[in-house]
Amino acid sequence: MSVIYDRVALIGLGLIAGSMAHAMREHGLAAEITGYARSAATRETARDIGLCTVFDSAAEAVAGADLVVLAVPVGAMGEVMAEIAPHLAPGATITDVGSVKQSVIDAVAPHVPPGVHFIPGHPLAGTEHSGPRAGFATLFRNRWWLLTPLPDADPDAIARLDRLITAMGAKTDRMEAGHHDLVLAVTSHAPHLIAYTMVGVADHLRRVTDEEVIQYSAAGFRDFTRIAASDPTMWRDVFLHNREATLDILGRFTEELFVLQRAIRMGDGQHLHDYFTRTRAIRRGIIEAGQDTGAPDFGRTPQAKPVT
Amino acid sequence: MSVIYDRVALIGLGLIAGSMAHAMREHGLAAEITGYARSAATRETARDIGLCTVFDSAAEAVAGADLVVLAVPVGAMGEVMAEIAPHLAPGATITDVGSVKQSVIDAVAPHVPPGVHFIPGHPLAGTEHSGPRAGFATLFRNRWWLLTPLPDADPDAIARLDRLITAMGAKTDRMEAGHHDLVLAVTSHAPHLIAYTMVGVADHLRRVTDEEVIQYSAAGFRDFTRIAASDPTMWRDVFLHNREATLDILGRFTEELFVLQRAIRMGDGQHLHDYFTRTRAIRRGIIEAGQDTGAPDFGRTPQAKPVT
Repeated sequence: MSVIYDRVALIGLGLIAGSMAHAMREHGLAAEITGYARSAATRETARDIGLCTVFDSAAEAVAGADLVVLAVPVGAMGEVMAEIAPHLAPGATITDVGSVKQSVIDAVAPHVPPGVHFIPGHPLAGTEHSGPRAGFATLFRNRWWLLTPLPDADPDAIARLDRLITAMGAKTDRMEAGHHDLVLAVTSHAPHLIAYTMVGVADHLRRVTDEEVIQYSAAGFRDFTRIAASDPTMWRDVFLHNREATLDILGRFTEELFVLQRAIRMGDGQHLHDYFTRTRAIRRGIIEAGQDTGAPDFGRTPQAKPVT
Repeated sequence: MSVIYDRVALIGLGLIAGSMAHAMREHGLAAEITGYARSAATRETARDIGLCTVFDSAAEAVAGADLVVLAVPVGAMGEVMAEIAPHLAPGATITDVGSVKQSVIDAVAPHVPPGVHFIPGHPLAGTEHSGPRAGFATLFRNRWWLLTPLPDADPDAIARLDRLITAMGAKTDRMEAGHHDLVLAVTSHAPHLIAYTMVGVADHLRRVTDEEVIQYSAAGFRDFTRIAASDPTMWRDVFLHNREATLDILGRFTEELFVLQRAIRMGDGQHLHDYFTRTRAIRRGIIEAGQDTGAPDFGRTPQAKPVT
């Protein structure tokens, strides 16, 4: 494939930015990749693994870039944007990879200089690992990457960013920012908070059950622990910045849970059986949509061995 | 390996019994394997795939067996035991594979004839698939199989069953039945009900978001749908028969969830960050205990393709 941007600046060097660097290099999509991270240790790691040309200031990293990617926790987006704004090249495109879109738009858009294109985005991709070493080139393959451009966004700038994302293996779609935040509250934010909560409950009980909760976790619980191992700073910011939608979905969740708890207490087996039959159908829909493997147990090997 | 039982009768021919048949045959652990399922269609399928010698009555299947495995939903255990009791060979061992132990003991033990050994058990193994075609020989490999023998159980009978389980690749441990039910309420029963609930909430919202919940499920939600695709009858029975422990854990869960919801509403980022840091440590414990893969995203391949 051919070069789409001459110089791409990655602000924040975690799992997503790291994976973008690998994917862009593998497919030759950027002539030069620069980067900056606030933490000196992260910059050092990124240099060690040759992730990109790492600068010690965001201003230097974005100088002359025709694409700047904000890949920091959503709570830090506005501050970072204010810092880099005076140093942006005319005609540059700014995008972000935050999991919440309306609050990022509110924080970033006021700082965007005239002539610079701001196109908010969100790759639905990630793992429970974080940091520059966690990135890999195929992270985005066959995954959705949602764009939530503002009504007056430049169509050519959107099309160019779209080409980059598609060339990294992802599928793009466009959505209004508020709608994005509602959909993601259902598919991601509420499930993450619920997983964190269940793991927290088990953590309390671990002390009374003498580690049996860890030892016998394969019966379902361990799947929650994977989700609840995600980056704490990123997720703190997601919940604080998509507050209303997340609390709305959690409210619906608690109502449903109470109805099911009552069915258990009352011995209403028919209600439980009907409910569990409906939820089974959703799984089929997800596999048919190509959004997960149909292999039993995610295709995990029977011998789960420690990885060191 | 050498034959451990001359004739093993499997009552119920689902995922667990099917996997036992494959594992016992692969390792030559039973001279003969017989089976029975209440549903004629299940018996037909089991015959088609040559799972074992399938009989049209439980009485015929257990005749002459030195090991009988009750592999039916926990709510059906007592009835099945009453039906087969008159046909059991003297000295035979009865075990079960139910996910709840105290209620199975209460239902089964009164029907056990003198001279027959009853040793309740629970393999912590399974997938979201069910039925005789879902079984495979390696299901139990490196998984725990808990035994909850009564105080007066025959040590030789326990040791022999233990040898069979170990030879199928599992690790055994012994536990008091009530304690088992509490531990499993944390590691399995409450997480399953929570996953069912979250998927139910998404099912309602699917209609207002035009299938976007399915399309964008890879952001976390899809892991819940795997758990919520488990067999509805089996799980209805688990909740009804481990009612007190499950409701206790769900009560603790709701308390924790409310505290986290309040932290989101109040903007208490420090509380959220501390909580999410603690839960991350639990994941590390599970991987170090060899109970899950440390590969990112369970080692799922980036291209999740529909399986037909």
